[in-house]
Parts: sequence; structure tokens; C-alpha cells
Amino acid sequence: MSAILVVGSVAYDDVQTPFERKHRVLGGAACYFSIAASLYAPVKVVGVVGEDFASSDIDRLGRKDIDTSAIEHRPGPSFHWSGRYDYELSGAESLSTELGVFADWRPQVPDRFVGSEYVFLANIDPEIQLETLEQMRRPAIVMLDTMNFWIDHKRDALERVLAKVDVVSINEAEARQLCHTFSIIRAAREILALGPRALLVKRGEHGATLFTRDGAFWAPAYPLEKIQDPTGAGDAFAGGLIGYLARCGQADDGALRRATIHGIVCASFAVETFSVDGIEAMTREAAAERYRALRALVALEAKALRDEDPFEAAAAG
Amino acid sequence: MSAILVVGSVAYDDVQTPFERKHRVLGGAACYFSIAASLYAPVKVVGVVGEDFASSDIDRLGRKDIDTSAIEHRPGPSFHWSGRYDYELSGAESLSTELGVFADWRPQVPDRFVGSEYVFLANIDPEIQLETLEQMRRPAIVMLDTMNFWIDHKRDALERVLAKVDVVSINEAEARQLCHTFSIIRAAREILALGPRALLVKRGEHGATLFTRDGAFWAPAYPLEKIQDPTGAGDAFAGGLIGYLARCGQADDGALRRATIHGIVCASFAVETFSVDGIEAMTREAAAERYRALRALVALEAKALRDEDPFEAAAAG
Repeated sequence: MSAILVVGSVAYDDVQTPFERKHRVLGGAACYFSIAASLYAPVKVVGVVGEDFASSDIDRLGRKDIDTSAIEHRPGPSFHWSGRYDYELSGAESLSTELGVFADWRPQVPDRFVGSEYVFLANIDPEIQLETLEQMRRPAIVMLDTMNFWIDHKRDALERVLAKVDVVSINEAEARQLCHTFSIIRAAREILALGPRALLVKRGEHGATLFTRDGAFWAPAYPLEKIQDPTGAGDAFAGGLIGYLARCGQADDGALRRATIHGIVCASFAVETFSVDGIEAMTREAAAERYRALRALVALEAKALRDEDPFEAAAAG
Repeated sequence: MSAILVVGSVAYDDVQTPFERKHRVLGGAACYFSIAASLYAPVKVVGVVGEDFASSDIDRLGRKDIDTSAIEHRPGPSFHWSGRYDYELSGAESLSTELGVFADWRPQVPDRFVGSEYVFLANIDPEIQLETLEQMRRPAIVMLDTMNFWIDHKRDALERVLAKVDVVSINEAEARQLCHTFSIIRAAREILALGPRALLVKRGEHGATLFTRDGAFWAPAYPLEKIQDPTGAGDAFAGGLIGYLARCGQADDGALRRATIHGIVCASFAVETFSVDGIEAMTREAAAERYRALRALVALEAKALRDEDPFEAAAAG
């Protein structure tokens, strides 16, 4: 079970939905990712917070298997995002993004962490993703997340970093935007041609599709009766995915497919509540139950399902 | 292999997409359904056409295993729908709907057809669906399609007919509209409580979900690089679904799950071309190949797939 490193935002979020409103709750890609991934393997966070950041929130991470010693503390305000969701709960409208100490931060990976085998470069300027990657020794798997803003404004840097990573996650609209096509299949082929050997196209409430050179794997979303807050779903997804790969120590197509389901499971816990509360409370037993339910959801015969623990068996069904 | 009866529109369509425009092509729910279903079992069509309807178009149906002898010919124009799709190719905008001879038509099921075991009541006034159903002797499986217009304007009649059918197909937005909830799971529970034992929620380019009292089954859409015209996808879906049930003579949860995949396969051929051209050219071999590809798309290990012919084996994987 190898260590995981994540580089990304540690933040406070204000979130509005048609039903509720939350002020200054714990957020940020690195938080969602690390809490989810820590269910599978130890995680180290490289990030930055301001002087307003509550030590109790650092402690929340520390109570999981998360090393927070590389979270820098700087004078000034922490990253603070404010967003709103409509009735469809699909796609946030950003009301404000106050970068604070995050604005001119350049991640420094401490020497003790440069040997980490699994690396998640959360959504951030692709030039910074490149700089971070250059500090790493020889990671086994690097996963990258990005967004429409960087596709528009830093396409060259984005293409350079895409050529150096193993796994990319991106949502459907961004895949279309990146490749100037409506066809997700064509977009997937073009993105894989840039270098990565696996692409995860996130489809929100419809699940996610894994593309590799050998084929595609389509995972449904976990059917939830109530979704409270979609914030962080993509980072929790990445946490479950990289967490599982680190835990099982494999990265073939089968492992990537199982990891995709683990990602979906973590995302389902993330969106059930505001902030990181859902993934914080997630247990291996509860995650394994959802994993099996997701397998049953696509099975032709429910009885054909084996009752395995997907956290224990590398070849779990 | 039992006979299938479909009651619905036989029409001409004008279709515009961002890329192309077609004038007076063969369409109508009964056409899409019967051509798809005829790949599986014999089909009888109860419908009506006007004096402008080309006998060559009746012949197109007749060249399949489709009995067109109960298509009435009346003075006046045929049903003529005109619609437009946007760049997303999701959801048509109806530009005009000229009902013609369809307007005051009341289906008369000929005596020789009232014993049909499999019945598809295509989207039409639910009062007419009820009247038609009363003429049938004792069908094994009745499937019903409906739309937002009837939910808004004929809710009582719709609820009465829902109580008398076995399988309902409806799209996601309509399910939410019918049950006044955003939760598809809650909507599914409420619709099943009205009487049907299976509900198909159509998700367009994301596939379809089957709900029964015993659980849910999530089928992806067949991944197409090019979609030319979504018209008729839902009716072709119903054709593959009912066709398979009639062919295999089973209707348990396993059969319904396999039938759902056959429905997805037929829908994929329908949307690849304008009009019914795609399903008209579909072969059992090509459909079986897509069936297996859809199973591979959700399989954890590609090698675990059995290479069966889904048209021959009732328990095909």
C-alpha cells in the first residue's frame, strides 16, 4: 500500500442551493481528495492556508490517515470560494473566488514526499501542475484534474502537462471544449493521443466513463434519493480512484475499472451532504456496500454477484 | 415466439438538425417500433394513413415481418410532424404537428389480432390507449409510452391506463413531472405504485434505467461517434425491448434486463441515421455485436464476457 500525494487547494466554501445555504465550510480539492483517499491508503497534502484557517480544521484532516505537515501557513486570508447551484444541481455558478494566500503560492514538495508513488494534481494552473510534477522523483501513477478556465487560457501548458500524466479526469463539456467536438468518443481518442493512458469523463448524475487504449468502461452514478451539495464530487471521485489504485498496487485495465467504481462511491458520499461531512463519515463497510450495489445495478442477474469485500480482494467483482 | 401488436402513428416527418434537413421522411411511433421489433418476432400494426401516403412506404414495412393489413387508409392528409434539434441533439422542438387523418381516428383492433400477447401502446391520448386495451383479449405484456402533454392535460386518464399496463417507458424529465419530484428513485417508486411492474426511464445519450419492485438496472447508451437524428429513439427502444420479450417468452427481472439492452441497441441504430433507415438496415448479427459491446462496457474484466448470441439464448449474457 503506497503513499499518495495531493497538491491542491485547502479552502473555505460558501455554498447556496435552492434549499439551503452554508457559510465558510471546509472545502478545497485537496481536502475532498485526501479525506476520500485516506480510506484506502495514507495521504500527504501539499497546500497552503491563511491565518484565518482554523487549526480544528487541520485537525479534522489529521484524524484521518492524512499527513498535514506540508500544508503551509501564510499571512493573509485562506482560499475562499462562493458558489450557487440551481434546481438541477448540475454545474455550480461561481459567485466569487477569493484566492487569498493561494494566489501567488508555488507548491514546494518536501524532500520526504518526493518519492510518493501516487500523485494527484488537483485543478490548478497547469504551469504549476508542471512545476510540481518536476519535483517528484518517479511516481507510478499521476492523475490530473483541470477545468474550462485552463482550457481557454492555458491550453499550451495544459497540453504539456497532459503529455506527462497517466490519468486525466475532466467533465463531459470540458472534454468537448478541449477537442472542439461534440463526440465524447472522438474527444477521448484525442486526449489519449496527447499522452495519458486513462481518461475519466465525468458525467455528473449519470456517472463516469473510463477510456483507455483497450476500450471503455461505463460506470453509473450511485442512485441517491437526495443530493445536498455537488461541490467536491470530482475530487472525492479522484480520491476513491487513486486511493484504490494505491491500495491494490495494480494499474491494469481491470484495476482502473474497479478504481472507477470506487471513485463513484466516494463521490456519492461527498454529494449527500454539504462540505466534506459525507466522506468524513464514510466507512469501508458503507463504501463496500455501495460498490456492490453499483455492480448489481448493471448485472444481468442479481444472483450472479459475488459477495466480496472490494477493499480486500484486488480482483474484487 | 408470440405475435406483437402496436397501436400508434404512421407518419411523415420533417426533421432539422444543425447539420442537415430532411423533408417528408417515413416516421411515426408505430413505424419505428414495428421495424425494430420485427427483427425479433412478427409484428402487426394498427394505424391510419391518409391518401398522400405512398404505397411504397407500406411496402417498406411489409418487406419486414410486419403485417400492415390493419393500417386504415382514409381520405385526407397523413400525420405530418415537423421538428428541430439543437446542437445537443437532446429533445426536439416541435415546429408543427398536423394530425390529419390521425386527429379523430379511434383504433379498431381486428378480431384476428385481439389475441396478440404483446402489445405496445405508443404515445397517444391515454383515453385512446384505454379504449384500445379494452379491445384486447388477454395480453401477456402491455407496454405504454407517453409524454409531457398527456401528463399536463389528461392526468386522470393516464393514471387509469398506467394501472392496467405492465411496462411503462417515459423520459427522465417526464418522470419528474409526473411525480412532482426531482428524485428519479422516488418517481420510480410512485409510478410502480400506480400498477406497472416495470418502468423504463429513458436518459437519452446516457442510456436507460429499468425499475422493478426487485431493484434497478442501469444500461448505458451505445457509444456512437455520430448521431444524426434522435427522432424515434424511444419507439425503437420499445421495439427492441418488447421484441426480445416476445422472442424469449420470459418476463422475469433477468429477461427485462436483457430486453432493456436490446432496446438500447435498437435505439442506437435508430439515431445513427435520419428516419427509419438505420433500424431498417439493422441485422441480427450487427445487433448482437452491439449487445455484447454494451455488456463489455460495464464489465470489470473484458475476458469474463461469454461470446453468446443474444438472439438465440434466453439466458444470454
